[in-house]
Amino acid sequence: MKMMETSPVIALITDFGLDDPFVGIMKGVISRLSPHARVIDINHSIPQGDIQRAAIQLWMSKPYFPVETTFLVVVDPGVGTDRKAILVEDSSYRYIGPNNGLFTYAFPQEYSAWELSNPAFHLPSGSTTFHGRDIFAPAAAYSANGVPGKEFGEEIHDLLHLPNPGLNAEHDRIHGEIIYSDRFGNLLTSIGKFTNTGGQHYHFVPWLP
Amino acid sequence: MKMMETSPVIALITDFGLDDPFVGIMKGVISRLSPHARVIDINHSIPQGDIQRAAIQLWMSKPYFPVETTFLVVVDPGVGTDRKAILVEDSSYRYIGPNNGLFTYAFPQEYSAWELSNPAFHLPSGSTTFHGRDIFAPAAAYSANGVPGKEFGEEIHDLLHLPNPGLNAEHDRIHGEIIYSDRFGNLLTSIGKFTNTGGQHYHFVPWLP
Amino acid sequence: MKMMETSPVIALITDFGLDDPFVGIMKGVISRLSPHARVIDINHSIPQGDIQRAAIQLWMSKPYFPVETTFLVVVDPGVGTDRKAILVEDSSYRYIGPNNGLFTYAFPQEYSAWELSNPAFHLPSGSTTFHGRDIFAPAAAYSANGVPGKEFGEEIHDLLHLPNPGLNAEHDRIHGEIIYSDRFGNLLTSIGKFTNTGGQHYHFVPWLP
Repeated sequence: MKMMETSPVIALITDFGLDDPFVGIMKGVISRLSPHARVIDINHSIPQGDIQRAAIQLWMSKPYFPVETTFLVVVDPGVGTDRKAILVEDSSYRYIGPNNGLFTYAFPQEYSAWELSNPAFHLPSGSTTFHGRDIFAPAAAYSANGVPGKEFGEEIHDLLHLPNPGLNAEHDRIHGEIIYSDRFGNLLTSIGKFTNTGGQHYHFVPWLP
Repeated sequence: MKMMETSPVIALITDFGLDDPFVGIMKGVISRLSPHARVIDINHSIPQGDIQRAAIQLWMSKPYFPVETTFLVVVDPGVGTDRKAILVEDSSYRYIGPNNGLFTYAFPQEYSAWELSNPAFHLPSGSTTFHGRDIFAPAAAYSANGVPGKEFGEEIHDLLHLPNPGLNAEHDRIHGEIIYSDRFGNLLTSIGKFTNTGGQHYHFVPWLP
Repeated sequence: MKMMETSPVIALITDFGLDDPFVGIMKGVISRLSPHARVIDINHSIPQGDIQRAAIQLWMSKPYFPVETTFLVVVDPGVGTDRKAILVEDSSYRYIGPNNGLFTYAFPQEYSAWELSNPAFHLPSGSTTFHGRDIFAPAAAYSANGVPGKEFGEEIHDLLHLPNPGLNAEHDRIHGEIIYSDRFGNLLTSIGKFTNTGGQHYHFVPWLP
C-alpha cells in the first residue's frame, strides 16, 4: 500500500434504483471499512440487468475520474449462479463487479484480474442475493485501502466480453446498431456518434474516418 | 464529546423526493454546522407519509453502518401538529426524526430519548412546515459534533410504535401480511422472507423455525 | 487564496436527470481537480431547459449553504450557441453556469462577473455539447481551490435576467402567476406564498404587507 495525497475515490454504477435502501447500504459498508474514501455516484438507474448500458456508462465516465479510482459496478442478473465476482486492475484504475461483460468497453490492453473468493474480505452476513453488500462493496473498500489484487483470490484470465454491436456494409449501405441514447437525444451507434443539434437534426461523426 | 478517528456519518431517509431542493437544503445546513460529517443518502423516494416503509428501510440499513452513525429520518405527515421532534440514542447509534413510529423496527432494547425542544439548536429561520431544515438537520449536525442528548431538551419515555403487522394462525392456515417488496421482487412478510429466485419462484425462510 | 478551516463546498443544480452518467462525470472532473471539495447535490431533476425552476431552487437553497459555497448550475438549452459561460461572485458565494437568467433570483445587489473564456481552465477534451464537463465543472473546481475570478476571463456586466413574473392589479382583483409548486402542494406565486395545510387548504402570506 502506498501513501496517497488525497483520499481514494470509489465510483458506483448499479441497477439498484432509487426506491430501495440498497445503494445506501453499500455506502454504509464502504464508510465502515474505508472511512476516508470519497464515494461518487455515477448512476443507479440502469434498467434491471442491462449490462450493456452499464458497460457504456462506465466507458463514458472512466477517463474523467482520478487515477486510482475504483469503479464498483453491480448489474448482476446472474447473482447466486456460478458467475465469478472479480477485481480487474490496469495501470490507472480498478474495476469490481461480476464477470458478465460489464467491463467490455472499459477494458484496457493490459490488465490483471482476480476472483473475489477470499472470505476474509467478505461480510460475514453473506447472503446469496446481495453480493453488492456482502462481496463487492467490501472489495471496493479494501481495494481503495490498498489491499493488492492477489490477496482477494486466484488470478483469472477468462474475462467475459459482450458481443460486438451489429455492423454490416453491403453495396452502398451500412447497417449499424444504436447502442446508447441519452436524455438529450444524442445517439451512440456502431457506426459513429450522432449529436442532437435540435429537433430531428444531428451532427454525425463516424468512428472511422 | 470524545475524539473520533474518522469523521462522523449522518445517514438520511426522507420522503422529500428528487424534484425539489429540500434534501440539498438539509445537506447545506449540515455542511455549515458539521463540516466534517460524511453524509450518506439511504433513500429519499419513500412514498409521501409512508412511515412503515421508512421504518423498514432503517431496520434493513442500520446494521451495515459504522457505530456512532446518526440516522436522520424525516417522514413527517404530522409536521406542524404537536407530535414531538426527538433524538434517540442507544449504545451504537443515534436516531433523529418525528416521534411517529419511524424507529419502531430499529428500536434497541435499551435507549434514551429526548425532545428536540431547545431553540439553541434550531435554525432561527424556523418555519412550521420544514422541520427537516430547521430542527432535524441541525440536531443531526450538532449530535454528530458530539452534543449530548440531554442538551437538546427534556428526556421522554413515550416513544410511539407502529402496530405489529397482521399474523393469524387458524386450523391449518397462516395469514400474514406483506410489509415490504423491493425492486427485485423479494418480499418481507409477517411470516418470513420470500427471496425471488426468478419469475414466480421464491425461496422462503420463516422468521420462526 | 486564503486558508480555509474546512474544505470548500460545491453545490450542484442541473437538468441532467438520473438516467445518464453526466452528473457523475462532472463529479469525477471535480474530484480530480479539487480533491478536497465537498460536493452536494441540490437537484438534477430540473425539467429539461427549465431555467426558471432552477433559478428558484437556487434562490430557495442559497441561504442555507456555508459562506464561500460555489453553486454550479447547469441548465443550458443554449449550449453550443454564443451564450456566455460565466462566474459570478458576491460577498458570500460564487455562481457558475451559462449566462441565461439562472442567477436572476439569487442575484445580490453587488457582484462581479467574468466570462469563463480562459482555455487554461477548460478540459482539453472540450466538446461543443457538454460544457458541464468541459467548462463549468473545471471552473467550479478551480474556483473552490481559490483561483480568483479575474483569471478565468474578461469581466462582464451584461448579466441576463429572467422577466418578472406576471402581476396585475385592477379594480378589486389581483392576477398573479404560480412560479413554483413543490411535492407537498405548496405554491410560490408572484403575489405571495401559499403553504398547503392539508387537502385544498392553504395558509397565505403575501410578499408585501
